[in-house]
Amino acid sequence: MSKDWLNALQSQFGNDRVMTETKDTHSYSFDASFGSFVPEAVIQVYTKEEIVKILKVANEYAVPVYPRGQGTSLSGGPLPVKGGIVIDMAQWDNDLKVYPEDLIVVASPGVKTSAINEAAGKYGLMYPPDPSSSHVSTIGGNLAENSGGPRGLKYGVTKDYVIGLEVVTPEGEIIRTGGKTIKNVTGYDLTKLIVGSEGTLGIITEAVLKIIPKPQFSKTMMAVFDSVVTSGEAISKVLTSGLLPAKIELMDQASIEAVENFKPIGLPVNAEAILLIEVDGHEETVNEEVNQIHGILNELGATDVVIPETKEEEQHLWMARKLVSPAITRVKPTKVSEDATVPRSQIPQMIEKLNAIKEKYHVNLVVFGHAGDGNLHPNIICDKRDKEEMIRVEKAVAEIFEAAVSLGGTLSGEHGIGTMKAPFMEMELGKAGLDMMKRIKKAWDPNDILNPGKIFTSDQNNELVLSHG
Amino acid sequence: MSKDWLNALQSQFGNDRVMTETKDTHSYSFDASFGSFVPEAVIQVYTKEEIVKILKVANEYAVPVYPRGQGTSLSGGPLPVKGGIVIDMAQWDNDLKVYPEDLIVVASPGVKTSAINEAAGKYGLMYPPDPSSSHVSTIGGNLAENSGGPRGLKYGVTKDYVIGLEVVTPEGEIIRTGGKTIKNVTGYDLTKLIVGSEGTLGIITEAVLKIIPKPQFSKTMMAVFDSVVTSGEAISKVLTSGLLPAKIELMDQASIEAVENFKPIGLPVNAEAILLIEVDGHEETVNEEVNQIHGILNELGATDVVIPETKEEEQHLWMARKLVSPAITRVKPTKVSEDATVPRSQIPQMIEKLNAIKEKYHVNLVVFGHAGDGNLHPNIICDKRDKEEMIRVEKAVAEIFEAAVSLGGTLSGEHGIGTMKAPFMEMELGKAGLDMMKRIKKAWDPNDILNPGKIFTSDQNNELVLSHG
Repeated sequence: MSKDWLNALQSQFGNDRVMTETKDTHSYSFDASFGSFVPEAVIQVYTKEEIVKILKVANEYAVPVYPRGQGTSLSGGPLPVKGGIVIDMAQWDNDLKVYPEDLIVVASPGVKTSAINEAAGKYGLMYPPDPSSSHVSTIGGNLAENSGGPRGLKYGVTKDYVIGLEVVTPEGEIIRTGGKTIKNVTGYDLTKLIVGSEGTLGIITEAVLKIIPKPQFSKTMMAVFDSVVTSGEAISKVLTSGLLPAKIELMDQASIEAVENFKPIGLPVNAEAILLIEVDGHEETVNEEVNQIHGILNELGATDVVIPETKEEEQHLWMARKLVSPAITRVKPTKVSEDATVPRSQIPQMIEKLNAIKEKYHVNLVVFGHAGDGNLHPNIICDKRDKEEMIRVEKAVAEIFEAAVSLGGTLSGEHGIGTMKAPFMEMELGKAGLDMMKRIKKAWDPNDILNPGKIFTSDQNNELVLSHG
Repeated sequence: MSKDWLNALQSQFGNDRVMTETKDTHSYSFDASFGSFVPEAVIQVYTKEEIVKILKVANEYAVPVYPRGQGTSLSGGPLPVKGGIVIDMAQWDNDLKVYPEDLIVVASPGVKTSAINEAAGKYGLMYPPDPSSSHVSTIGGNLAENSGGPRGLKYGVTKDYVIGLEVVTPEGEIIRTGGKTIKNVTGYDLTKLIVGSEGTLGIITEAVLKIIPKPQFSKTMMAVFDSVVTSGEAISKVLTSGLLPAKIELMDQASIEAVENFKPIGLPVNAEAILLIEVDGHEETVNEEVNQIHGILNELGATDVVIPETKEEEQHLWMARKLVSPAITRVKPTKVSEDATVPRSQIPQMIEKLNAIKEKYHVNLVVFGHAGDGNLHPNIICDKRDKEEMIRVEKAVAEIFEAAVSLGGTLSGEHGIGTMKAPFMEMELGKAGLDMMKRIKKAWDPNDILNPGKIFTSDQNNELVLSHG
């Protein structure tokens, strides 16, 4: 390669730091979603000044730039769909400081999400967002995608814990948004605009995160149902009874079976659904609420309610939930992971629609996820080499999006839009709504160099990516 | 008047609905902040289509448009500083619907904030944001300004409860942002961008608000201190002990005295500060936490801790806090109300800085407010007719902003920027940070017709508004 922009980068970073060999670039060509795109160059960065340099070059030569954490995105966030430069942010993991008196943490972008929670834990505090990948994923990636997790039901998602950011803008200016105060109404909320913007509006170089007191006690329960729809009704009833568990997770029969085949722990394989519920807080309150929930579950037709007596048994149940994703890919190699989300009252209706879609297209549809906040994870297990099957999968996915939107829901509750859902944005937002988002992108990134091809469709990306991923 | 834009409005709305007489326009010339600006026309609206019509005319003729709720803003949000059209949104108060199963409320912009909480209360639910003006102010105004209130300490502010909006853009397009789901990562978070944008990015015509189970029990306590700084240390200690009261409010000696002069209820007038603390939740938990807090307050040097035994006594204490604002204006007619906010650990330092500013400029500075989240309300009581005094007040205000920013804080925690704090934006945000905000404004409102003169300085507004308000 003898490209001008590459020469410019090499002269600034030295040849060694600008990785262009296939063995390196291929490691940055995929994430946990679908599709593979090889970048032309990769640079591991450790300071904001390095990012500024890269972005100045990228703007000068109009080269796309793709920031990347640990690549655990389920929606293609870091995929370099137009080639160009990947910035590996994951090595920049050395700054993590807890300020217990301010109830905040300050972290550099490559810090692992679970490390933040562990650091807070030393002071009896916690950082609540807990995406399944938190032991692998970086806080930078979590911020870009506004990651959720089971605890989102009670505690909210990543965005709810970000009070300040340091950001390099697409044109290479360093700005600070928000700050270290809990309340801040000084101008537009750029913090919450950047969090969840999937790396299209800036590269986050530091985050100020709110932490909270850790609940002193928690208890887990498993409720068994012979109808998924009934389990949805039970969730609704619990949440409208003045109770707010920390987590309510759903596993349908296919998830239960997949986990039991993968690593048997004695889940009820004949059940159509189980709910895993965790209640936390003050010990007496937790015990009383567990009793109340038990009563509601029985009343709503749970065939069994199991309350583990030891922490070890509890951990087994939660491990079962975490194993759903790896377990289902044992069945077939390709997993198309969705996270369409509906208003809580529509959970039973959404489950019925998902059943109908499964039948209609003969797809292997597995449903699990954060049912308590309406954020189901319908996953289709398939084989991307089977072209005929993939066409059915594409149609089923499109119909899942339509079902969610028709029930007053949204394309994505926590995984983000990325490339695959981009063609469906207008269906949810309308032309004018989508246009207002594009205006912001254009105003901030006039050369369209930062993570292009994400959120918004472009010439290269105006259909579902499945069949050519 | 025979202006073209006025003719255009009159031909669409009829002469009666376009109010231009001084007796009408003067009613819309002020808010709860400083300064008075008379608009050229006022229209009371009841539908989004009416707003679209007004904005189309405004863009065609480049006339400024100022949306307005009940005018309780403390930062000049609705002031028609460049004349033009005021849109009175407060009459549009007829839509308020609770969806208990989805834990949401849908409201039209003119609904009073307290009415939302009352409606939710019928289902055992609550809408937590509780600005002091909630019985008067509209939800539309609260959304535009991202209002806070005492309960913000535990429950967060307006923005934390908004999940969807219907908005008319500055150019008159109707868009929907977010939706009815708790989680949503479909594109940029326009909802949280618009909330708190002080009516400069769009006019909110409907809001979908999250509601939560109402805590079953609460208890209030009053702690008396002979040093304001010590009271700040006590707050810090409580919050880092794993305890999260619903409210921690501070009143300094000047506030206590003003209230006792206004309506005597037996507050300790010799104390340098009192803290009013409310703990809510499950009854046993509340009682245990009140005991823990009591212990901390004693340890940190409270000279007295009073726990009211009846709800009536509790209400007296909270009424005292609400009376601070009206009470202090008895001393002198003009109240310059600030809400600079600092990280929680910096509360004692901020109080010391405020004391120094009070001495330096010989101003009548009263400090009270939401100390638990670092959001103090330093108020300067003065007389705007006294030019010499107002110059000292201006200098003191500027120094309050500088003090907050130097401690890692922000110009405004909940009142907003409006006109008065606009000249200080760059001090906090830097040139590049402010520029990124301006880019959004310009991209959304190319003709600068929506609430111009707010947040950003313009030719007409490049200094403190005090001395010519």
